Amino acid sequence: MNTPHVQHPGAPVRSGIPEHGRIPKYYAAKVDIAALLDTLGEGEPLPAERDLAQRFEVSRETLRQALRELILEGRLRRLGRGTVVAGPKLAQPLSLASYTEGVRDQGRRPGRQLIGLDRFPCPPVLAVDLGLTAGDPVWHMERVLLADDERVGLESTYVAVARVPDLDTAFVPDSSFYAYLHDEVGIGFGDADERLETVLATPREALLIGTPGALPMLLIHRFSRDTAGRPLERVRSLYRGDRFSFTTHLNPRAGG
Amino acid sequence: MNTPHVQHPGAPVRSGIPEHGRIPKYYAAKVDIAALLDTLGEGEPLPAERDLAQRFEVSRETLRQALRELILEGRLRRLGRGTVVAGPKLAQPLSLASYTEGVRDQGRRPGRQLIGLDRFPCPPVLAVDLGLTAGDPVWHMERVLLADDERVGLESTYVAVARVPDLDTAFVPDSSFYAYLHDEVGIGFGDADERLETVLATPREALLIGTPGALPMLLIHRFSRDTAGRPLERVRSLYRGDRFSFTTHLNPRAGG
Repeated sequence: MNTPHVQHPGAPVRSGIPEHGRIPKYYAAKVDIAALLDTLGEGEPLPAERDLAQRFEVSRETLRQALRELILEGRLRRLGRGTVVAGPKLAQPLSLASYTEGVRDQGRRPGRQLIGLDRFPCPPVLAVDLGLTAGDPVWHMERVLLADDERVGLESTYVAVARVPDLDTAFVPDSSFYAYLHDEVGIGFGDADERLETVLATPREALLIGTPGALPMLLIHRFSRDTAGRPLERVRSLYRGDRFSFTTHLNPRAGG
Repeated sequence: MNTPHVQHPGAPVRSGIPEHGRIPKYYAAKVDIAALLDTLGEGEPLPAERDLAQRFEVSRETLRQALRELILEGRLRRLGRGTVVAGPKLAQPLSLASYTEGVRDQGRRPGRQLIGLDRFPCPPVLAVDLGLTAGDPVWHMERVLLADDERVGLESTYVAVARVPDLDTAFVPDSSFYAYLHDEVGIGFGDADERLETVLATPREALLIGTPGALPMLLIHRFSRDTAGRPLERVRSLYRGDRFSFTTHLNPRAGG
């Protein structure tokens, strides 16, 4: 069997052609529009919906379903009142390096905007993660993550007040928390465990990040330890699924 | 400020309460139902829709929107004609270990089902990834991934025919490709680069994996090299976003 195979290897194989049954109309339109987007540059406006519907011979409603998926997947993005061709997703390394470094390495300008900083008595589950006794005071800092002034994520950090007592007065909330810990508090990062999953944005999260509701997001749970192996922080980082991908380099396991 | 804070630390903070504006009705119902699910065991049936709608004082339509999101997020799953409480997501390590090992380590029975194996002349983009000349023969093997007989993913492997000439005759498609490479062909894995993102399932993929259309999926692109550093394979692995999460352990970067 020697079939020609010209598709891009990153694309799904025999994309969109079910083994049984027909291709949904909206999906055929989506594939056609995606091919059209490949010929346009980043930031170029999408042709008028009326023209696209005519060109691909679908109803406006069918066209909009196709466009909705292309927006959810980050091929298109809303800009002001229009829709433009989106750039490639940011490829953020899964590493102990901060968000700030990762974004800067990709030639974007990182930023953070404080939503809230509060302190509260540590609940039992969090106490285990942070190596505390339930009831000990804990900071919760919530910040929107920015790349080139675009809101792209939401980060919640939980850390014991005893570790960083001056967080509310000495830390500049739009700077790197890790740089602050290292330079000002003298705490070095040791290692971390991360778990990554996809979730839907809640209405509040969608509002804070400025995304359409129910946009698939990438959620990373991080538990980190300092260089002495003591539990340090628990972080919940939510990234727009249409704007981010994560990269990692895998080496053979020790003893594997 | 010393506010009580009893929420689970993995949950979004002040979940679902926008800073401005009201909570959408479907979302309030979703939060209520999620709390109800916490009191039920894995595999227990969801109470009747009529009863839930009455209990949470929402319309059937609003209730269904809430249930749809809980299904997309993997809190509920369809089973036959009913809906039951889903178990926790599988937490698969990001490692060079195979899918088979990762699932087995979690006490599930891994399996693979061959969709197709074909050979074709290597297109230019893939040739770069595989260290080949465009036109060289390449295998494409597509398999559905199973856990306890449930379809949970779809894997496409691209590898040069020159590296594994007998793939179509000597390899048992429901076994581990990596074990075959190691034990039968004498090729050892060196290292790999992976990129992880969230995408929507295409209609064909949804059909093959048996998911609702447009379910958010986790897609992993892998480029691997053998122990001599030569490009080995390119793999596109698609996992159900409602059934999988991925874990990694982060160590300090060398020189960082």
